[in-house]
Order: sequence, then C-alpha cells, then structure tokens
Amino acid sequence: LARGMYVQARRQLHNLPAWDVALLLESSPPKARAIIWQLVDADEHGDILEELSEEVQKSVIRQMAPEKLAAATEGMDTDDLAYVLRGLPEQVYQEVLKSMDEQDRHRAEKALSYEDETAGSMMNTDTITLRPDVTIDVVMRYLRLKGELPEATDKLYVVNRDDQFIGEISISRLVTVDPSKLVNDVMEADVQSIPVDMDETEVAKLFERQDWISAPVVDAENHLLGRITIDDVVDIIREDAQHSMLSMAGLDDDEDTFAPVWKSTRRRSVWLAVNLVTALLAAAVSSMFEDILAQMAILAILNTIVPSMGGIAGSQTLTLVIRGMALGHIGPSNQRWLIGKELAIGALNGVIWALLIAAVVAAWKQDLVIGGIIAFAMMANLLAAGLAGVTVPLILKKFDIDPALAGGVILTTVTDVVGIFAFLGTATLLLG
Amino acid sequence: LARGMYVQARRQLHNLPAWDVALLLESSPPKARAIIWQLVDADEHGDILEELSEEVQKSVIRQMAPEKLAAATEGMDTDDLAYVLRGLPEQVYQEVLKSMDEQDRHRAEKALSYEDETAGSMMNTDTITLRPDVTIDVVMRYLRLKGELPEATDKLYVVNRDDQFIGEISISRLVTVDPSKLVNDVMEADVQSIPVDMDETEVAKLFERQDWISAPVVDAENHLLGRITIDDVVDIIREDAQHSMLSMAGLDDDEDTFAPVWKSTRRRSVWLAVNLVTALLAAAVSSMFEDILAQMAILAILNTIVPSMGGIAGSQTLTLVIRGMALGHIGPSNQRWLIGKELAIGALNGVIWALLIAAVVAAWKQDLVIGGIIAFAMMANLLAAGLAGVTVPLILKKFDIDPALAGGVILTTVTDVVGIFAFLGTATLLLG
Repeated sequence: LARGMYVQARRQLHNLPAWDVALLLESSPPKARAIIWQLVDADEHGDILEELSEEVQKSVIRQMAPEKLAAATEGMDTDDLAYVLRGLPEQVYQEVLKSMDEQDRHRAEKALSYEDETAGSMMNTDTITLRPDVTIDVVMRYLRLKGELPEATDKLYVVNRDDQFIGEISISRLVTVDPSKLVNDVMEADVQSIPVDMDETEVAKLFERQDWISAPVVDAENHLLGRITIDDVVDIIREDAQHSMLSMAGLDDDEDTFAPVWKSTRRRSVWLAVNLVTALLAAAVSSMFEDILAQMAILAILNTIVPSMGGIAGSQTLTLVIRGMALGHIGPSNQRWLIGKELAIGALNGVIWALLIAAVVAAWKQDLVIGGIIAFAMMANLLAAGLAGVTVPLILKKFDIDPALAGGVILTTVTDVVGIFAFLGTATLLLG
Repeated sequence: LARGMYVQARRQLHNLPAWDVALLLESSPPKARAIIWQLVDADEHGDILEELSEEVQKSVIRQMAPEKLAAATEGMDTDDLAYVLRGLPEQVYQEVLKSMDEQDRHRAEKALSYEDETAGSMMNTDTITLRPDVTIDVVMRYLRLKGELPEATDKLYVVNRDDQFIGEISISRLVTVDPSKLVNDVMEADVQSIPVDMDETEVAKLFERQDWISAPVVDAENHLLGRITIDDVVDIIREDAQHSMLSMAGLDDDEDTFAPVWKSTRRRSVWLAVNLVTALLAAAVSSMFEDILAQMAILAILNTIVPSMGGIAGSQTLTLVIRGMALGHIGPSNQRWLIGKELAIGALNGVIWALLIAAVVAAWKQDLVIGGIIAFAMMANLLAAGLAGVTVPLILKKFDIDPALAGGVILTTVTDVVGIFAFLGTATLLLG
C-alpha cells in the first residue's frame, strides 16, 4: 500500500466499532492481520482483543511489546483480562504483569487464580452490594451518587458483615416497591448462586434453564466473589454447540480458518493419520479375500457400496446421540430403549436398501446371486451401524472420551469392517 | 403401573419445575411421553409447552383436545403462543382459536400475522412505554403503581403520540439520574431498533454483537410493536450452531431422538437414498476399470484408501468453511486467499501422505510400482479435496443452497471419483 492509503485506512478503522475491527481481523490472512493491527489506534487495542477468538488473539498478541499489552489490558473486565493473560507464554506474562499498576496486577493475579473454563474464569467483580438493614430509599440515593451502573446490571446483591451472599434485589423490583421498606424485607433470599469452581458448560446450562441475565458467584464459604453476565454465557453456548461439529471432523474448537498453511497442515494431519490406519485396516480385511477378488472383478467394483451406506446410517445415529447427550436427554433410563429403537431402524432400513440394491445390481450386472449377497451384507451392516451408532458414544462417555472426537472414526471402522466381511465373506462362502 | 404409583408419580411431577418436566418429556420414548403428559397438572401445560422443542411439542399437542389446548395457552407470552399455534393442523388451529377468549384470540391472530423465523415471531408485546415530556419522578411513581415489571425488563421505551419509537431509558439509568429531569433529556435517542421482518439469525447476530439484553421491534413506519429478549435469542443461537452439525448428517434441526421408529426411518432414508446414488456412481467409475481389476486383485484391495483420505481431508476444509461462513468470516475479499491456502495444505498433505502410503504399500505388498501409483493418486486427491472443500460450499451458497446440507455429499462424490480415477486410471496406463 502507498503511504496515503495507509492514512486513509487508519481513519476508516478508527471509525469502526471494536466488534467490526475484530471481525475484520478474524476474516483476514496472517499478513493482512498484522498490518491491520498496526493501523488500529492503541487505545482501542483492549476493546478489540476482548472480541477476538483465542487463536486470533494469540496471533495478534505475539506482535505486541509487553508494555503495550499491559496498557491495552487497562480497564478490561476481569474475565477478559484473565482470558488474555492465560494465552501468554510465561515470560511475556511476567513482563506484562510488571508493566501493570499495583491495582491491575492484583486484580489480574486474583482472576488467574481461578481455573480456566470455570465460573471463576467467566466472572466479573463489578457487583454492587447492599447491606440488609438499610432502606430502599437509602439504596436509591447511593445509586444516584454512584452515577452509572456496570453494564448488564439487573440485580443488586445483598451481603452480610462477612461478605457472605444472603439475597438479591432486581433493579426492576427496586423501582416498584415502597422506598421506606428495608432491603431485608424486599430482597429475594431463596436464590441459587454459582459455586466458583463450577464448569462453564454447567453454568451455561443453568442460565439457559433459568433465563438469567446475571447470577452471583460464591466460594465454598458462600462469600460473594463476583457475577456472571449473559453476554459471556452466550459465547460459551455457541462454542459448546459448535464443538461437536468441529470435533467430528477432528478439528479444534479454536481452529482459525485463516491460520498459516504449515500450522493448519500440522493440526489436520493428526486426523488424517488416524484415518489412514482405519483405511489400511479396511484394506487388510479386503486382503483376506484376495482369492475371490482375483476371480471376480465385480466384487471389487461393488465392495465400497455396503461400507459407505453403513457409514452414513451410523453417523446419523451417532450425530443424534451426541446431540442428545449434550442436551442431557440420554441417560441410563432410556439407553436400552434407544438401542432397541436404532436397531429397529437399522432393520427397517436394512430391508428397504437391501431390496433396492439387490434390484439395482441384478439389473446392472445381470447377476441375481451377487444381488442377493449384497442385499444380505447391506442388511447386516445397517444393523451394525444402528447398534454402533448408539453404543460407541455411550461406551466412550463411560471412559470419559469425547464421543464427538473419537466416535466417528470408531464407527466407520466398525461399518467398514462389518460391511466388507459380510459382503466378501458371504461371496467367498457361496461362490469361492 | 399400579394405581398407587400413578398417584405418587403425579405428586412428584407436580413438584418439578416446568423446565425439568420438559426435559423428562424430551428424554422419553413416545409411550412414556403420553403417560407423563396425562399425569401433569393441566395448569402447568402452558409453561411446559413453552420449553419443549418443536417436534416434541407437536407430539404432545396431538393428544390434547382443542379446548384444553386453548386453556393451556392462556397467559402465554406472545411469541410462545405463536410458536405453539404455528405447529397446529389448520382444523385444530381454528378450533383452538374458537375456544379462546376475545383478547387472546386477537393477540394470537396478530402474532401469527408475522412470518415465522423473523423478529416478529420472536417478539413479545409486554413493553413499557413512556412519553418524552414527563419527568423521571412521574415515571417512577407510575412504575410503583404498576407494581411488577415483565421479566427481563432492562429498558423502558419512549414513543411519540403516534406510537413511533424515539428512544429508550435503561432502568439502571432511571435509578441513577436526577428525578426532576424530563424523559426526553435523559433518554438515549440514537438507538438501533429491529425491523419486524428481520430474519431471526440476523437478530441473534445483532444481540451477540451489541451485548443486548432486550431490543425494540418496529414496523416500516417506526411504530413500536414489541421487544425481543435475550432468553429467546439464546435458543436461536444454540439452534443455529447445531444446525450445521445436524445438516451435515442429513438430519433435520427438529429431529427428535425419541421419535417413533417408522418416522425416524422415513426421515433418514432421504439421506441414505442420496448416498446410494453417490456410492453407485463410485462403483460405476470403478466399473470402467474392470479389466485391470480383474487382472490384479491388489488394486481392488487398495482402491478404498485414496478416496477415504480425500473424504476426510475435504470434510475438514468443508467444516471450517461452513463455520466461517456462518460466523461471517468468509466473503469475496478473502475467498481467493482461502482457496490458495487450502490448495497449499492439500499439496503439503499430499506429499506427506503420498510418501507414507507408498512406503506402507511397498513394504506390505512388495510392489514399488503400485506404491508409486497410490502415492500419485493420493497427491491428486488431496489437492482435489482442498479445492472442493472451499469451492463447493461457496458455489452452493451462490445458488442459495445450504452448504451444510448438500456440501458433504457433493464433496465425497468429488473425492471418490477423483480418487478412483487417479488410482485405477494410472494403474491402467502403467500396468494395463
């Protein structure tokens, strides 16, 4: 770019809201990303960093000097601050901490003391707390003095002398009750709070279930530590929902579409390696039937149809079971019913597609026997697909392995092996 | 179940919150669902219906008499009411409308006049509106008279005499400003409102982007029609995120894990039919090389490896591109870069896996020529996979076809055909 265009680009970026600059960065190849970041005003760095996904954030932070990074994190919400700092290499992290002022450093260290992906790492400390023994009128005067409330403040929290959480008042209640009443009399005391070590996915489920806008976070002794707001929960909900889709293709949640080539290649090669083993296994099974394959080329031609249909039917079942498990719909009480159901679908589908493929093959290759053999193999494989589609994710979950990640490979291995065995094995028995 | 157990079950269900009963219904096979529904108190029917997914809701509604359904919908939020009514067959719908009282019927007809999956179908009409020329003090007295505000009310809307939206005041601002000021002076006038015909996915994106808790909905003349709240948006965000995963397996968004066998079989058979055509196409390609397959059984054994690797590599790219398109990261400006990147990854992966498979095959079958042939085919197919992984979804989107639904099938067809052609074609040229 020419010198004049830089100035123009800088002005345009300056007028864009942080969210749009973040989107622009997410959508740009590595080189363009670096240039855009240099053109952005330094005082907007913090706001933009908050909006970036983990991978892109990392790639941008890498080119910043520690003191600039420290400046950018000034005034960030606690949860965003922790999120940014967590991504730093140890040495940079120490330098950034050194460049921070006392208060921010303390806040950062506190935020980082909570485990990642828990309520503690999602929460903000910008709560407004009240004592139970003051009147609503006093509260109103206090708020007016304060001037502005933190974003997404829908509730004020009531704590006792030891800072223990004892109840809450929604702001909409505050404006509708008699101002002469005591906080203690109008507050809601029977409120569910979030333990600081609760997993973020559980937190998201609670929010969805209770339609919360914000919720208090407490430690084991019920001390109020902060609050979680819906905007941070929305990110978790979307990430969790996308997780299964990405995992099923062997991709990481944070996979950056515009990452450099070598980095993407390395990440994706793991999955290709696993698949190569699976494909070689299938080839090894075919290899057991080399004699019959050598005699009849038609078997080689038709050999891929049955495994392919099994793979599709199985992954439909697998996808539904994975989603059902994520939504909490599948448990010990209905597993057996579900296995029975998927076996019945497998049988029904088996009959339908067995008859159809037999008809097609008989018509195409004028061979009724091979039509019958492929029909039998189809039947067997669709049954196997239904059974594996339910049981593989259930078993993986028992061993604490992510079914979305490993389920697909195991399933297609089953349907490949069963499909080839059923087809070539039967052919060997009848024709060999 | 014995008579006594029914009573006990009924009591237990009575003590569960609506959300939990909904979860129980979602997790139950059809027969159990019907029994549970009969055991639930009639006055809780409405609350539970609101929480159910579309498919399960339909299956439950089917067993209700129209007048009972009308009773259950009494007092429902407008958007939930519309959601339930939309699912009804025309005749039942008319009967339900007849059983409603005047006011509810009017509300229902109004809600149904907006198109499904737009801002209009998501909104509620429970807004609190203010005039610009009153003081905050008057507003506060009005709210106190009102007594209770609708759920998730974080803002009050300001309208002129013609009910046109002119601004908003957040409740947290209401409690912090000088009560003697006029609404007009403290309201935020420069507020983005949502057009009533905006697509629900766009609405969700706006909420995510602006961190809204609620937002006003207006018609083309800027009349305030209602508001959308974050709890309804969260459902859309989760559904949209899950949509891609389910579509990629040829499943419907509303697919009910516990639907009856025949229904599930019918739904899934569409995808199996499409796949059968694809598999037969691949077989037809193999069939073109019948001569060489008849000569060398080893080709038949190895024939599945290259298509399989291409399918995996291609679907990784496809998954990333589909996600990137959903997040708005991929547009005309970076498409060419992305195609170049995925081709480079394809080439790099091609070299790696070509060398590896050549080594494996050479070691396993003691055949260097076939090792070379499979290496060449691998190289060609991984390049094709990278290219197709980006271009197929882009082309589908141009023709307004959902890439998540059709992308996978087209992609694997490409990788199957290219893989088989490259492997068996080269073998025919060199060895035939």
